[in-house]
Amino acid sequence: RQSWDNKIYRVVRKIKKVGQDDPRRIVHGLKVGLAITLASILFYIEPFYDPFDQNEIWAVMTIVLILEFSVGATLGKGINRMAATWSAAALGVGIHNIAIRCSGTNNAGVAMVVGFFVFTMGAICTFMRFIPALKPYDYGLMIFILTFSMVSVSSYGPQNLRKIVIDRILTIIIGSVIAIVVCICICPVWNGEDLQNLIAKNIEKLGNFLEGFKGEYFHKGEYFPKSEDGQPLVNKPFLKGYKSVLTSKSSEETMANLARWEWQYRFGFKHPWNQYVKVGALTRECAYKIEALNSYFNFEFQAPYEFRSKIQEQCTQICSETGKALKELALAVKTMTKPASVNIHIEKSKVASQKLKLLLDMILLEDYNLREIIPPAAVSLILIDVVPCIEKIANAVHE
Amino acid sequence: RQSWDNKIYRVVRKIKKVGQDDPRRIVHGLKVGLAITLASILFYIEPFYDPFDQNEIWAVMTIVLILEFSVGATLGKGINRMAATWSAAALGVGIHNIAIRCSGTNNAGVAMVVGFFVFTMGAICTFMRFIPALKPYDYGLMIFILTFSMVSVSSYGPQNLRKIVIDRILTIIIGSVIAIVVCICICPVWNGEDLQNLIAKNIEKLGNFLEGFKGEYFHKGEYFPKSEDGQPLVNKPFLKGYKSVLTSKSSEETMANLARWEWQYRFGFKHPWNQYVKVGALTRECAYKIEALNSYFNFEFQAPYEFRSKIQEQCTQICSETGKALKELALAVKTMTKPASVNIHIEKSKVASQKLKLLLDMILLEDYNLREIIPPAAVSLILIDVVPCIEKIANAVHE
Repeated sequence: RQSWDNKIYRVVRKIKKVGQDDPRRIVHGLKVGLAITLASILFYIEPFYDPFDQNEIWAVMTIVLILEFSVGATLGKGINRMAATWSAAALGVGIHNIAIRCSGTNNAGVAMVVGFFVFTMGAICTFMRFIPALKPYDYGLMIFILTFSMVSVSSYGPQNLRKIVIDRILTIIIGSVIAIVVCICICPVWNGEDLQNLIAKNIEKLGNFLEGFKGEYFHKGEYFPKSEDGQPLVNKPFLKGYKSVLTSKSSEETMANLARWEWQYRFGFKHPWNQYVKVGALTRECAYKIEALNSYFNFEFQAPYEFRSKIQEQCTQICSETGKALKELALAVKTMTKPASVNIHIEKSKVASQKLKLLLDMILLEDYNLREIIPPAAVSLILIDVVPCIEKIANAVHE
Repeated sequence: RQSWDNKIYRVVRKIKKVGQDDPRRIVHGLKVGLAITLASILFYIEPFYDPFDQNEIWAVMTIVLILEFSVGATLGKGINRMAATWSAAALGVGIHNIAIRCSGTNNAGVAMVVGFFVFTMGAICTFMRFIPALKPYDYGLMIFILTFSMVSVSSYGPQNLRKIVIDRILTIIIGSVIAIVVCICICPVWNGEDLQNLIAKNIEKLGNFLEGFKGEYFHKGEYFPKSEDGQPLVNKPFLKGYKSVLTSKSSEETMANLARWEWQYRFGFKHPWNQYVKVGALTRECAYKIEALNSYFNFEFQAPYEFRSKIQEQCTQICSETGKALKELALAVKTMTKPASVNIHIEKSKVASQKLKLLLDMILLEDYNLREIIPPAAVSLILIDVVPCIEKIANAVHE
């Protein structure tokens, strides 16, 4: 019994966490409930009420299918659904009429003509869904196949069919409009905003790493602290944050694609979503370099402090200047303002990296063991390499 | 006119490429067409034919919605759809009866009771879709909301409702069965197989890089060839292939999730999909190290050949042995056999990396400039680091 209580408690806590992580999820649940209820009640009210009609189910269905978490996804699906239903219904009615005109009341004949068209359209549209350029209209293509097949195989006569189809299109428009209005008017979740925040957060994580790195790497001890299983103890959160940047590519691209549906409704001018994707890609490139930096925590031995102290000043200078620059860039992306002193920080880090290069040229090597001094030396080379990377990010943000 | 012809030609070529890249896409299109046609024709035939019934549209709809490219996705959606429709319909009929019993023919009362339940269920189920543990049942939850709302807001009387609901469930089962049978029986696309191939291909790409790296990096020239815009010319395909490994995380996880629906239908024993995800993650970690290796192509200057020649032998040894080991592991993953000589290759590369460590300890540094010799030295350190990484992959594959 105790264990059951425990299990239930843990499940409840997990569910609570889903809500706490992003309270907008709870709001989204309520929004869906509200939209469905609105649509259901609407059809109980005159003049929409008709006991022999099943139109309300189409409106409810539309809402459940298109009301997504973000405005971009909802608008994309709504527009796709309306356009696809419209065009497919028109084409379907046409094919249905042709089939009946060709074969009259001969059921087998109608079935053959309709079957041929349904097969061809189904195969072509399904194949079209694989074309990358048509990805934003994927949902539309699916609804097109659906509506086209449904209308053309419908066993009603042509006169009835036209009325039913028009009713259905109207119901779907009502459903789409309810979904879009609820989605935009009640605590809307803008994909563009989420994308902006994600990019800003990723840049900030890299900044945190660089600022934290200097203190962790250039300390006075001979060894890095280790736990028993050989894992480095240097597992502070700001040193692990960048890991998520490495794999954020697909979510950034999805968001940018969905954000495309939003721009004209939101700001009235074209947001450079491609630019965000570009900044994201550059950030990720920088994160790979940071992954390389991070791997130098894993070495068993540490270079003599005497050697490290020679390069320490310029390295920490690069770390803190690039870190500051990244944090300022993150703020600039988030607030859509011009970053004020990013260029100063980048200039400073460039100067430091020049000095570091000279320093590396001048260090006399007689007294050192090569294997010992490679790690800090490689760290400094990577840091020199990080600087132009961050300059690229800054340029992309400026654009 | 010329430019229009050109445009059309380019579009046609692009479409052709989509088919050539994966001919199974064309087959999938034909399968969808076939399944829809089958379902449509079925309802033109006695005893299913009924001019006043619209059941065929539910079957067609089910097929369009659940017949996906891969068996895993189709099975997952089909099972979700059937289970959700069943349970939601039962619950919906119950609620509908309660509402009518409470309020009789008073429409406003029915609407209020139904509205309350629809709102609550809609909000709860939508929220539940965010819970990570319920991700495989996401589609089911959506269908549950859909069916529940549709049935409970339905304006038919209780007796009629029961008949309609049962009809609908049967139609959806027919649709699902047609979709699943077509999906499995005609050129099936198994997600598990695709996942296996993807992992194997990723491992192979790393192997290709390591085998190619030794020839490109340890050549005799003083400089790496550069193109005019400063990009290194060393852009041979085998040196770029690993890039896609860096960002393949989300597709691997999606595939593993879908593959879970397949196992019992395919092999009768549980495939370790989690193990595949683990191997994929280890492969990616190794790819990050390779990204670090690759960055050493970007330096302007090259270490003196005299220095490189000292470490060349052991480095090329590590590269070729790890490369061979990876290629053999890739083959083992692909064919699900035990790799024969992987351990020998790994042992050899371990020996080489031990020798390399000793060598690095012994090299006298007087004659060298630190900045010049860091890159090859760092390369050798990374190579030493790659070896245990590959051992981990090998261990994970063995399991």
